[in-house]
Amino acid sequence: MRGVIMEAPGDVRVEERPDPVLKEPTDAIIRVAAACVCGSDLWPYRGLEPVSHQVMGHEYVGVVEDVGSEVKTIKIGDFVVGSFWTSDNTCEICRAGYQSYCPHRTLMGTIGTQAEYARIPLADGTLVATPGMPDPELIPSLLAASDVLGTGWFAAVSAQAAPGKTVAVVGDGAVGLCGVLGAKQLGAERIIAMSRHSDRQALARDFGATDIVELRGDEGVAAIKDMTNGYGAHGVIEAVGTQQSMMQAINSTRPGGHVGFVGVSHDQNINGMDLFNAGIHLAGGGAPVRRFLPQFIELIGNRSINPGKVFDLTLPLDKADEAYKAMDERRATKVLLTL
Amino acid sequence: MRGVIMEAPGDVRVEERPDPVLKEPTDAIIRVAAACVCGSDLWPYRGLEPVSHQVMGHEYVGVVEDVGSEVKTIKIGDFVVGSFWTSDNTCEICRAGYQSYCPHRTLMGTIGTQAEYARIPLADGTLVATPGMPDPELIPSLLAASDVLGTGWFAAVSAQAAPGKTVAVVGDGAVGLCGVLGAKQLGAERIIAMSRHSDRQALARDFGATDIVELRGDEGVAAIKDMTNGYGAHGVIEAVGTQQSMMQAINSTRPGGHVGFVGVSHDQNINGMDLFNAGIHLAGGGAPVRRFLPQFIELIGNRSINPGKVFDLTLPLDKADEAYKAMDERRATKVLLTL
Repeated sequence: MRGVIMEAPGDVRVEERPDPVLKEPTDAIIRVAAACVCGSDLWPYRGLEPVSHQVMGHEYVGVVEDVGSEVKTIKIGDFVVGSFWTSDNTCEICRAGYQSYCPHRTLMGTIGTQAEYARIPLADGTLVATPGMPDPELIPSLLAASDVLGTGWFAAVSAQAAPGKTVAVVGDGAVGLCGVLGAKQLGAERIIAMSRHSDRQALARDFGATDIVELRGDEGVAAIKDMTNGYGAHGVIEAVGTQQSMMQAINSTRPGGHVGFVGVSHDQNINGMDLFNAGIHLAGGGAPVRRFLPQFIELIGNRSINPGKVFDLTLPLDKADEAYKAMDERRATKVLLTL
Repeated sequence: MRGVIMEAPGDVRVEERPDPVLKEPTDAIIRVAAACVCGSDLWPYRGLEPVSHQVMGHEYVGVVEDVGSEVKTIKIGDFVVGSFWTSDNTCEICRAGYQSYCPHRTLMGTIGTQAEYARIPLADGTLVATPGMPDPELIPSLLAASDVLGTGWFAAVSAQAAPGKTVAVVGDGAVGLCGVLGAKQLGAERIIAMSRHSDRQALARDFGATDIVELRGDEGVAAIKDMTNGYGAHGVIEAVGTQQSMMQAINSTRPGGHVGFVGVSHDQNINGMDLFNAGIHLAGGGAPVRRFLPQFIELIGNRSINPGKVFDLTLPLDKADEAYKAMDERRATKVLLTL
């Protein structure tokens, strides 16, 4: 089969790889219907994480081709959405809603879903089938559910977005935009998107942002405080992962408020006294997308949400190199790869 | 009046100071009935924080001697308990239960309650009167409510102690011990006190600890995991404030679990990737004692709790120097100063 390999920073190729086979009786094999490039894929692409001959991709939707002998709920022919972390969905951690920290998890990025087929470990605990074959126009949104929607939504949950609350969003990538969407769905009264890009500002407004702030760092913090009687936002979503973005999020949050952080951390060190003085709640990490998938499939199916709008460029898998380039150069927010 | 002054590290004296007077119409003046030395007072005593001719003490109970013209609910003659942070108790932050982060707060340590009298700013929002004069045997517990009980209790709330939960407590000082008491009152099923001192272990058991772990650091983390099916505790109280204690708390908590940190931070830097990988909730800071005072006064008054047991040495104010020495040398957990 064909699949994406990152040979080195900046060097993305589509190569022939062996077709995946069932390794465990709990595995499924899916034919990938659509894949995409994640903002986190840009870290190795830019040489900010080590990379050498690495399979790529952790977001996926597809049709089940084969299942292992112990797979009970997922069936050949099902159209499925899965999380970027696999999970047994039966242990105490999964049952508490933290499937992305299941002790038996596998990161799908190590399997590589920017490819024609993929092996999905722990299929019953990882995949959720849609009710019948989805309308093709829904596929981008179902693909978004696999990571960016789940990640942004988890950030909004962690920021305790709710009626009456003001939520600020640091980061205007696909995850930040889905954080706006999540905060809106969770009922937040005021949603402040922090963005300098007019196209992303427009999508943020479409997803439910009530205000846009273009300032960053201390100026961004001051702007949020000005808009909230000097107190800061009730909740802030951190969807970048840098020191500046984390401190901007913490300092924009009122005492007693909640920061939901989902940006994959890079060189962050949070000073303990800063945190003590802030008096906030800090929660986040790798999003337990599986917790939300049944709800997402329903909301997407009944056209309540359209997170697929984060894809502003669609290319065939064979053009993966161009997909990475377009995101690296910020010509695209997120690229969908067709198969 | 007489009051404690820390002239320099290790140099504590009782000196004559001017009697406090009403400065604002929202002030009250109290005659201090009992004061005490806080673990946090040991940081400057040990030269780990700068100090020079500093008034000391932020915990207090006493009788109201005078009130300003705008004080409405607190009356001359009331026996009152107050928080170590003053608060207006009317702003959005206070109404959300974070009175220790009130924009109008004053740290009582800057006023110094290890003294015969003290001025209490924002008396209506800071003080809570007991129903009549308390039985003298309740005074140690009411004094504990002013800080260590409120701080330990807030840590237990932040760690989401509740029925069915396992809560571990890092730190066996007065705050950690009160964290055990709080976790017990909040219904935690299993409470693991981490302590190496037999007298503190005994008090931890008296306050509700079901298990004692003497190991620290990575060994302590491994012990907690062994006791919790490998997952870690649901909640962990961090009541020390060092890098080691914070990482011990974070690493002892299961994904999705809650760390409540109340140890005043010293040279802590929390690595963002460690936090991302932990998948926990982190909350804490300066405890909003005022939120809990009415409940504490009721629980102490009806003898449901006896946090005054954390005082294992009582000395007159004039012996404050010996009080600091005894705590510094760990001959006492917490010293009550009589007036």
